[in-house]
Amino acid sequence: MSYRALDSTTVIDYLRGQPVLAAQLPLDAPLHASEVGDGNLNQVFIVRSGSEPAQTVVVKQALPYLRVAGESWPLTRERMRFESQALIKHNELAPGLAPQVYLYDDALSLVVMEDLSHLQVMRKPLVARHRFPHFADHISTFLARTLFFTSDLYLTGPEKKLLQAQFINPHLCEIQEKFVFTNPFMTSPENNWNPLVDDAVQAVRRNSALKLAIAEMKAGYMTNGQALIHSDLHTGSIMADAQETRVIDPEFAFFGPMGFDVGAVLENLVLNYLAHFAHTPDPAVRAEYQAYLLGLVREIWTQFAAKFDALWLAEPRGDLMPADYWAYPGGADAFAEFRRRYLANLLHDTAGYGGAKMLRRMMGIVSVWDITSIADPAQRAVAERLAIRIGSRWVLERGLINSVEDLIGIVTEEAPAG
Amino acid sequence: MSYRALDSTTVIDYLRGQPVLAAQLPLDAPLHASEVGDGNLNQVFIVRSGSEPAQTVVVKQALPYLRVAGESWPLTRERMRFESQALIKHNELAPGLAPQVYLYDDALSLVVMEDLSHLQVMRKPLVARHRFPHFADHISTFLARTLFFTSDLYLTGPEKKLLQAQFINPHLCEIQEKFVFTNPFMTSPENNWNPLVDDAVQAVRRNSALKLAIAEMKAGYMTNGQALIHSDLHTGSIMADAQETRVIDPEFAFFGPMGFDVGAVLENLVLNYLAHFAHTPDPAVRAEYQAYLLGLVREIWTQFAAKFDALWLAEPRGDLMPADYWAYPGGADAFAEFRRRYLANLLHDTAGYGGAKMLRRMMGIVSVWDITSIADPAQRAVAERLAIRIGSRWVLERGLINSVEDLIGIVTEEAPAG
Repeated sequence: MSYRALDSTTVIDYLRGQPVLAAQLPLDAPLHASEVGDGNLNQVFIVRSGSEPAQTVVVKQALPYLRVAGESWPLTRERMRFESQALIKHNELAPGLAPQVYLYDDALSLVVMEDLSHLQVMRKPLVARHRFPHFADHISTFLARTLFFTSDLYLTGPEKKLLQAQFINPHLCEIQEKFVFTNPFMTSPENNWNPLVDDAVQAVRRNSALKLAIAEMKAGYMTNGQALIHSDLHTGSIMADAQETRVIDPEFAFFGPMGFDVGAVLENLVLNYLAHFAHTPDPAVRAEYQAYLLGLVREIWTQFAAKFDALWLAEPRGDLMPADYWAYPGGADAFAEFRRRYLANLLHDTAGYGGAKMLRRMMGIVSVWDITSIADPAQRAVAERLAIRIGSRWVLERGLINSVEDLIGIVTEEAPAG
Repeated sequence: MSYRALDSTTVIDYLRGQPVLAAQLPLDAPLHASEVGDGNLNQVFIVRSGSEPAQTVVVKQALPYLRVAGESWPLTRERMRFESQALIKHNELAPGLAPQVYLYDDALSLVVMEDLSHLQVMRKPLVARHRFPHFADHISTFLARTLFFTSDLYLTGPEKKLLQAQFINPHLCEIQEKFVFTNPFMTSPENNWNPLVDDAVQAVRRNSALKLAIAEMKAGYMTNGQALIHSDLHTGSIMADAQETRVIDPEFAFFGPMGFDVGAVLENLVLNYLAHFAHTPDPAVRAEYQAYLLGLVREIWTQFAAKFDALWLAEPRGDLMPADYWAYPGGADAFAEFRRRYLANLLHDTAGYGGAKMLRRMMGIVSVWDITSIADPAQRAVAERLAIRIGSRWVLERGLINSVEDLIGIVTEEAPAG
């Protein structure tokens, strides 16, 4: 069937014709659909059983409206394909931590998936000082499993390359290459920053040591196909409540450096930490929540590293390296050292990519709500200035970061809690 | 048209039906074909004009004979596709330095290309102490142009990813992954080494520092998609005479680390250098030719680095980084430093990959004719022992190699010429 945009009537007809959805929806009983998307690139319907409101699915469909803008429609369709493929893979590897996909229809550029209305995107609740008691456990599991099982540590060479071929994602990668690593660090019309931190922004743009480091991080992003990464794993891509966690919107997924994902999670927690200097005026309340956030940073890295290493020990089937390679006197120690170095390099990358992304949020096209929601520009500048200092140090000192305490130490040196 | 194996009659009928070949062959006049391949995976015909013997082409066709062996026929067809694609790309980027491709027929798994009968595969003439006055110039041009123009330094992000998608080469990569980096360094039934150097071989296999380094080099080979590399660029893949040079057999081509290609060329010259301790008994004659070989190593790296850097300065259109990124006071120096570090890392990789390949030639399934042609096992052991020492040091000391003189210095320290 060729493409047609669905509406809240035709989406129901469409779903009734999909027997694979029978477990989610009563296909022969009354159904109600409401469009809840922002109608920009995609439309999003929540479709619900008339008699049993808990029976519900989400339908997300790419829209061709932006065809006038030239390349947007192919880009939008491609985006939907990568998002669906990645969601399916994430479900397989980290069940319960990504929205379940019930159906993907390439011709209609749509995906039918789990309704997550009961969860909240994490960014705002973090500003409101909510706590997520399972978040560190869940996100570290998501990271460890999605990264390990798509790497050469678990896959054979041919398995990895065939998966990599499905995730060659040229245009979405280009967006990250340009807007994370390039344009924020040079003169570019779309860049946006608080005039009150103009001196700090301009200093970054002419800091040669930093520019070299960012160029080297970009080289890694463009060449280092370590694993299937989400590639946009900020706290706006995570939905959660006190019990559950789901990672959403993986349309940027491709084979890239693992540290880009880990760094994104940690960096967003640090930006939230800095935002509380304005959002939480009471120093005692602030200090307590900031300590919670740094505890998350510590727990996420520590649990991630432990889970990743445990998977490697439990399932060493990948071509890098087969167990026989380490089967000699002293080989067990060498294998342990190989794993240690692998995770040490991953922490360096986490610092470097986290730092680069922290900087781009302060001076590029993509800002971050935690901080832009600070109404007073002078108060905002305090947080922004600290983010620029911390981001710069994470990038410049990435090779010296030997533990998560070093990463946290830079935050508390520049911006003590409370 | 579906696949059929051609013979020396039907190959002529086939060529007569290809008007695109009119410039190479008189398609309506008498033609003669002779099969010259080893009939294993491929058949190779030289087809010549009856009246004008200089008018000639080579037809290389994959054979399905090995279908009994399971996966071989798909592998052979795939091999032919990667070889053809890479030859076409090499011709475009380094014209005159790869055999010209006149026609590629995917259905018949065949390629019609330039006849190189007037040239010799370099390995044997190097044992016979021939000299190739243009080799350093030609191969450094080939390396600089094929690597630079397929990297992020020249291509945009999307251009690079689309090309990379054409060169996802799972099974040929697997062969290199296994037989360069893994099996030679552990117990594996196909490994083959001179019993007289068994102690040195076993010592490599239980040297943890070396094993860690080899595992790290393999990780780079499996993940670091820097450029379209030939990936099997030894002196058996190069045909030359006093005037001309052609790089052949690029069926292993994929997006990998540049240093793997540069290292392969240099490492094979060093193995040839070591072979002359047996092949050239006269110390004065030997010393002179060995100096020539080390001169080639020096010239190839030096010219390669200069040409690569000159291309980068002349055509900085790649997304890593756009010129505007360096447009600030001091930016020109930072850009120069970025290029310097890029080439320094490339030299480290050249040492590491060259060393790994030198070692595998001594202790894996793939030996090297320069050395296996030494009839006396004791004499052969002398060269092999030196190759193991030099290869190990290239790998272990790769991070300390700051110039090609350091690379050569390891050779002359372990095995002084003469």
